[in-house]
Amino acid sequence: MSDRITLGHGSGGRLMHQLLDEFKKVFDLPGLEDAHEIEDRIALTADSFVVKPIFFPGGDIGRLAVTGTINDLAMKGAIPRYLMITYIIEEGFPIDDLVKISESAQKIADEVGIKIVGGDTKVVEKGKGDGIYITTFGVGIIPDGISLSTDRIEPGDRIVINGPIGDHGVAIINAREGFGLATDLKSDCAPLSQLVQEMLKVGGVKFMRDPTRGGVATILNEVYQETGYGIIIVEEELPIRPEVRGACELLGIDPLYVANEGKVIAFTKGDPGDIIRVMRQNRYGGGSCCIGRVEEDLDGVYLKTRIGSLRPLIMLSADPLPRIC
Amino acid sequence: MSDRITLGHGSGGRLMHQLLDEFKKVFDLPGLEDAHEIEDRIALTADSFVVKPIFFPGGDIGRLAVTGTINDLAMKGAIPRYLMITYIIEEGFPIDDLVKISESAQKIADEVGIKIVGGDTKVVEKGKGDGIYITTFGVGIIPDGISLSTDRIEPGDRIVINGPIGDHGVAIINAREGFGLATDLKSDCAPLSQLVQEMLKVGGVKFMRDPTRGGVATILNEVYQETGYGIIIVEEELPIRPEVRGACELLGIDPLYVANEGKVIAFTKGDPGDIIRVMRQNRYGGGSCCIGRVEEDLDGVYLKTRIGSLRPLIMLSADPLPRIC
Repeated sequence: MSDRITLGHGSGGRLMHQLLDEFKKVFDLPGLEDAHEIEDRIALTADSFVVKPIFFPGGDIGRLAVTGTINDLAMKGAIPRYLMITYIIEEGFPIDDLVKISESAQKIADEVGIKIVGGDTKVVEKGKGDGIYITTFGVGIIPDGISLSTDRIEPGDRIVINGPIGDHGVAIINAREGFGLATDLKSDCAPLSQLVQEMLKVGGVKFMRDPTRGGVATILNEVYQETGYGIIIVEEELPIRPEVRGACELLGIDPLYVANEGKVIAFTKGDPGDIIRVMRQNRYGGGSCCIGRVEEDLDGVYLKTRIGSLRPLIMLSADPLPRIC
Repeated sequence: MSDRITLGHGSGGRLMHQLLDEFKKVFDLPGLEDAHEIEDRIALTADSFVVKPIFFPGGDIGRLAVTGTINDLAMKGAIPRYLMITYIIEEGFPIDDLVKISESAQKIADEVGIKIVGGDTKVVEKGKGDGIYITTFGVGIIPDGISLSTDRIEPGDRIVINGPIGDHGVAIINAREGFGLATDLKSDCAPLSQLVQEMLKVGGVKFMRDPTRGGVATILNEVYQETGYGIIIVEEELPIRPEVRGACELLGIDPLYVANEGKVIAFTKGDPGDIIRVMRQNRYGGGSCCIGRVEEDLDGVYLKTRIGSLRPLIMLSADPLPRIC
């Protein structure tokens, strides 16, 4: 391990996992999830956001921060209740933009019914930040009877997603670098707590994660590492917009490693037909489908290609796109 | 109000209050306190830390972040229970320093018995940060029967503090600017939750605040604004180390506006003798004393000088020392 922090340490992937191992030596942290259950079925989560640019097609850093925190809670099956928001602002940042970002944050909070109860603001000198960084903290309540864990995953379980892969990362990189690719493409940034509660009512959901940093492939590798069960996803079934596929080809990256901000990957028991039908009724679930399954005698995560071969999807050392969230 | 963020917006004082007013238009936030009580006597708090330098006499940003969060909870009378910690790290930051800071954070958490349950790490490019910024979130439980509020403050109440004023701010500015002033001076950075619980057991405490950004004078002004009651503090009674007084004279600032990180100001009913005796037994209360009282027919906050005159202590537009926490 290098003795200095690199951008790769901050993106999903192997470098970040190495850094987490360092933290675990100090902090005695729990496992894989982004939210943590404490006593009395209370879930907590914390996330910092350094996305660049701050305003992007489909959202801004305020919407992203509240959404990200809601989604981390939702993945534990928790109903989001309270949120705190802190700003680290670079001197010279326009107050109008600060108000716009705050309004975006409040709008998403209102949509989901999470209450913003406080926060903090710090200012740093010009050149010691980059506009604004936001950190959000969420508290949710896990309803009785909900228990989501990789421990419950078994061979034969299906893997379900609620729509197209890679929109957020490609929208950000397009806005940031001005490639002019896929100009109509928007981030998928959306709060999923209501969708998730509807899925849980159907039953059969064993574990959920939002494929943010590191994308779908990284989440699947994390599950493989936790459970020891192999995973196969099917190329033909993957929902990927043509413009995302095209942009990724031009950039030389794989959409399966690109961040999403409005997607849930769920591991379900047996046939997920009923769950998918319910998901498709939700405003954020129109593109829901089954993309793969958990396998008994297989080591690793694989993509079954259109010609029937199995291509390994390893954990990359880092997300190919830094500062995506 | 200027249309851009200045350093002053991030320090305690009038500019920060103006910015808070802007946020209140968007967020519907509660009042004065740094921690917020939600249902079931649960207190939440959030704070970002951008102190410069990261390592300073008496602590580092890790110790400061955990201490600050513990103290915000303590001021509500809450027993600190859970903490989350997030890092925004500048590319190139030494991993050894990251480990040292994390160990400092864990050490303070262990002292108080607060459990660090998770966090997040983001990395930004060289030149888009300043080493490391930390944001911490705390959850505490407010014991039954505890109710601290400015609503309870009345004329005749005494104002108590647990020791010398201004150590943190002067230690930081000395370390940062290399003035070579007061070289033995350390930050007072210390977790006060145990001290506060001992004070609450004595009874008679109506309201507490930690005089961080903006210092003692700013906190007293906030209380004056909330209650409408004037306040007089007595110069002769103020515990200020000679080296802090000397440094402040050289810098042209008033120690009453300098940040502290291990101090509590308590408003108590009547004679605070019993409380002060208990405070002095605590490792962080050796210098406890009464510094003033709440007055009925007085507008504003005043310092009674050694010659008996009343000098107004107004709310400054900003803390004189930026990036102090």
